Amino acid sequence: MTLEAIRYRSGSLQILNQLLLPHETVFDEIRSVRDGYEAIKSMKVRGAPAIAIVGCLSLAVELRGGAGADDLVSFIRESLCHLTSARPTAVNMGRAARELMEFTENESMEKNTEQLRDSVIGWIEEMLERDVNDNKKIGNYGAQHILSGVPRDSVTILTHCNTGSLATAGYGTALGVVRSLHTLGRLKRLYCTETRPYNQGARLTAYEAVAEGFPATLITDSMAALAMREKGITAVVVGADRVVANGDTANKVGTYQLAIAAKHHGVPFYVAAPSTSCDLSLESGRDIVIEERPAVELTSINGVPVAAPGIDVWNPAFDVTPHQLITGGIITELGVFLPSELQAALTGRLTAL
Amino acid sequence: MTLEAIRYRSGSLQILNQLLLPHETVFDEIRSVRDGYEAIKSMKVRGAPAIAIVGCLSLAVELRGGAGADDLVSFIRESLCHLTSARPTAVNMGRAARELMEFTENESMEKNTEQLRDSVIGWIEEMLERDVNDNKKIGNYGAQHILSGVPRDSVTILTHCNTGSLATAGYGTALGVVRSLHTLGRLKRLYCTETRPYNQGARLTAYEAVAEGFPATLITDSMAALAMREKGITAVVVGADRVVANGDTANKVGTYQLAIAAKHHGVPFYVAAPSTSCDLSLESGRDIVIEERPAVELTSINGVPVAAPGIDVWNPAFDVTPHQLITGGIITELGVFLPSELQAALTGRLTAL
Repeated sequence: MTLEAIRYRSGSLQILNQLLLPHETVFDEIRSVRDGYEAIKSMKVRGAPAIAIVGCLSLAVELRGGAGADDLVSFIRESLCHLTSARPTAVNMGRAARELMEFTENESMEKNTEQLRDSVIGWIEEMLERDVNDNKKIGNYGAQHILSGVPRDSVTILTHCNTGSLATAGYGTALGVVRSLHTLGRLKRLYCTETRPYNQGARLTAYEAVAEGFPATLITDSMAALAMREKGITAVVVGADRVVANGDTANKVGTYQLAIAAKHHGVPFYVAAPSTSCDLSLESGRDIVIEERPAVELTSINGVPVAAPGIDVWNPAFDVTPHQLITGGIITELGVFLPSELQAALTGRLTAL
Repeated sequence: MTLEAIRYRSGSLQILNQLLLPHETVFDEIRSVRDGYEAIKSMKVRGAPAIAIVGCLSLAVELRGGAGADDLVSFIRESLCHLTSARPTAVNMGRAARELMEFTENESMEKNTEQLRDSVIGWIEEMLERDVNDNKKIGNYGAQHILSGVPRDSVTILTHCNTGSLATAGYGTALGVVRSLHTLGRLKRLYCTETRPYNQGARLTAYEAVAEGFPATLITDSMAALAMREKGITAVVVGADRVVANGDTANKVGTYQLAIAAKHHGVPFYVAAPSTSCDLSLESGRDIVIEERPAVELTSINGVPVAAPGIDVWNPAFDVTPHQLITGGIITELGVFLPSELQAALTGRLTAL
């Protein structure tokens, strides 16, 4: 089976409620922009690509129901503003809103309301399809690159955090590579780190692995180096919050430590991300500010305190892995590039698209 | 203040109940060998040195109360067997039992029951004192060694797991080094990892740090490398379950990964352990079998499930750090040695003792 966290049919949208995972599998109906906003705000859906998709699809559903008949352009603008405000730091929703608004304004000059409505819905449905297709390309490029080093054997992959169907429009990025390997019958085993402090690995990646039937093993973040020494890890594959021009990559905290351990063991380290996550406007990772999150995420789990009261806490949400440690490559929907090749590859090919 | 987890006065023993930490500070009275056995078995006390001390002290308390009057040697033998069976893998209790039994048998040849009782109690009280004194020596040697590299500055230490008053007879090993630095006014800050899956860092080291007033910050295990890059870590200091002849060191899982990250950042990596934790009968760490623990330790916290049901788990309890990564040295009560110096240093000096 393929885990479908976002179920969309024209006029109907259901999302897997991630607040109840991994213990309950419940799909919530999204009937309106208001429902979409609430789902994003309350973190029923998370992961920057998934947030943008669900936000836009909630608009498509409400448009299909006939909303905004009196002033469609205003309705779309207000809806997109509202959706963007739900999680302002998730850049993909902001980018999608800008692009869709520009498209809407252009189309509105030559189309009547019904035609415009269909165009906008079509744009959103295409966005969903493109995102899934891009992820499939990432999965295939990544799988082929990893397999090119081991022509006959099955491979063992180690990943961090959650980058699967639950974080994207579908298929996944780093976990999409794992999915492709599994489809090819070449995945021997996936090791997923629990990913403290928010446990996305233990809750979400493990859930996807069980649902998809991947042979998979959960470890603590502290066991990754030992797994590399004892369990024959073929490659480490992680996602990215942002890849900058020189290939330095911001991702969930712990990624940097994994990359150091991979380098020490001679295990190729890959970053899997769509080209839309590549930010060529920043030259190096030094320009990325590290967001610090509340202490309580670390000192309690599901509301239960797990640390000594009164202790100070440092809780950076992500870290930056320098490009020198990304020894396998950066896997995009356009191909796999060494960090040093990324800027030229994306500049040339993105222009050509 | 100094946190006193084992309160012993002739004829009276109280231990800090670690099952209730960090939320409640409760001392339990230990009146007998039976109480001692229960405290060890139920993990009210943990840490191999602490287990041996509490076990033997529970015998001293019962002896002081007059137990074993009819056949003292048999009573001591049976008590030691019983205490050793509570946690058979904690080697220190077994070693203490063998040594104390040998002492008892020798003494019994020339002493009457009352004299023998006093001798045995004296031996046990000396064991407590020696263990604390050895830890103080470890603390001082370690602190001086670390400070010799930074003549004027205060230092920032990163540690893993719990090696403090709660794991030893008192003072601690790796945390004893931190304690010495703090006493000298040279501890800028301690970073302690939460130490998944059993959270000894978050629960116990953080508790000790708060109780002692160390400037201390809790991080997840995955943040250690980032802390080394961003927070100016002067040295990493950890404890040891076992140090073998070539300096390879078995310790809580995650230690190996920390040592790799320290090497990558050029941060000195120290192991602090009494010479009794050094096992020269094993040549290298390859001879150490890695104990695997139940999955549930990783998939639930305080009885609350935190991972997706059905996922496989790998839960090794410790790992082996190769001697090449122990770049600072091995801190013992006899001094600080490079791994390559350890065997000669201990062989010569232990013989001379």
